[in-house]
Amino acid sequence: MVEGKKTVEEVVKSNIQLHKLFAVAPESFTVEGTHATPISNRELSQISSLKNPNGYLGVFQIPKHSEAIVSDWVLVLDGLQDPGNLGTIIRLCDWFGVTDIVCSDDTVDCYNPKVLQATMGSITRVKIHYRNLDIYLQSTSLPIYGTFMDGVNVNNTKLPKKGIMVMGNEGRGISTLVSQLCTDRLSIPQFGGNTTESLNVASATAILLHEIRK
Amino acid sequence: MVEGKKTVEEVVKSNIQLHKLFAVAPESFTVEGTHATPISNRELSQISSLKNPNGYLGVFQIPKHSEAIVSDWVLVLDGLQDPGNLGTIIRLCDWFGVTDIVCSDDTVDCYNPKVLQATMGSITRVKIHYRNLDIYLQSTSLPIYGTFMDGVNVNNTKLPKKGIMVMGNEGRGISTLVSQLCTDRLSIPQFGGNTTESLNVASATAILLHEIRK
Repeated sequence: MVEGKKTVEEVVKSNIQLHKLFAVAPESFTVEGTHATPISNRELSQISSLKNPNGYLGVFQIPKHSEAIVSDWVLVLDGLQDPGNLGTIIRLCDWFGVTDIVCSDDTVDCYNPKVLQATMGSITRVKIHYRNLDIYLQSTSLPIYGTFMDGVNVNNTKLPKKGIMVMGNEGRGISTLVSQLCTDRLSIPQFGGNTTESLNVASATAILLHEIRK
Repeated sequence: MVEGKKTVEEVVKSNIQLHKLFAVAPESFTVEGTHATPISNRELSQISSLKNPNGYLGVFQIPKHSEAIVSDWVLVLDGLQDPGNLGTIIRLCDWFGVTDIVCSDDTVDCYNPKVLQATMGSITRVKIHYRNLDIYLQSTSLPIYGTFMDGVNVNNTKLPKKGIMVMGNEGRGISTLVSQLCTDRLSIPQFGGNTTESLNVASATAILLHEIRK
């Protein structure tokens, strides 16, 4: 379920199949060949996931994508829980050309409406795989970078052309099991007093993907 | 108004003055010398700004801080609207030692409960000034960096020790008036297909503050 004119239009134009589209003003929906079913604001607010629904709601088939993981760099998410963080991270991967994300089975569902709202359509271009991380990480020959408070300063590290970057849960970070499979430990240097406890995981991901692509 | 045990405790321990503290389990509040008024979960949900209140709510005096802007790098926010973005950016400034943020008068209120929730206590260490940006930016002799889609690649730019970094509104970017006052135009390079429209402003701020501090 995707909401908002711009995002709905973007998903309609992608190869994701539309099941049904509702619009308060169907005549204003501009994608040719798409039929929008009229709906009242009151009806929309009953099915919307938003506090303030904004006129458009599309229901789509969950896309079936290839199981193959082909991105040069793969982002691995270990137990991410916040839908807004996952949505922001999918959008970041789209920006930085990371086409595959591998999530642990206990990561928040990427089709959660709050995730979709935060991706702004990027979910149509990034493949998300839910896997047992223990099995996945043991099967790869790529270097596995994890982010830790006591890791090596990323500014002093030359990153390779291909690899895996692991980001952990908002509260507990990377799990013990997964941290034992990391081949390299990185950190993002803090500046000034040692006061803030941690970077938000989406902020840390922004910085690391930027470093990967430099 | 600040909610959640960890954040309330952090603000109580700062120099911000507590007005009144409510707790469902007052005996579990661990800051010495602080009296918590017992409250039922039902009462708490009536005053809380959260969908799922989590047991603690503190009401504080809005701090009066010095008007002086002393940070080597100053972050300027031009019309930022999303409370979650402002909260994340305050937390980023705390991490990267940027102690002053200057907001345009139309930027979201930094004492909005949703902002405070996202700052995780960083608001006690970062000064936020609301100013007329036209007057403020005309009065400074520091270089003024703005982020634009057509700016110079930040990876090819040597940033000075002191300066001003301007971030724009989520939808329209930096306003015309402010963009004319920028002395340097920067951009964050995209990678892969030119598909995503823009980086989220908090993600872009994370990358730029990281670059400033390198």
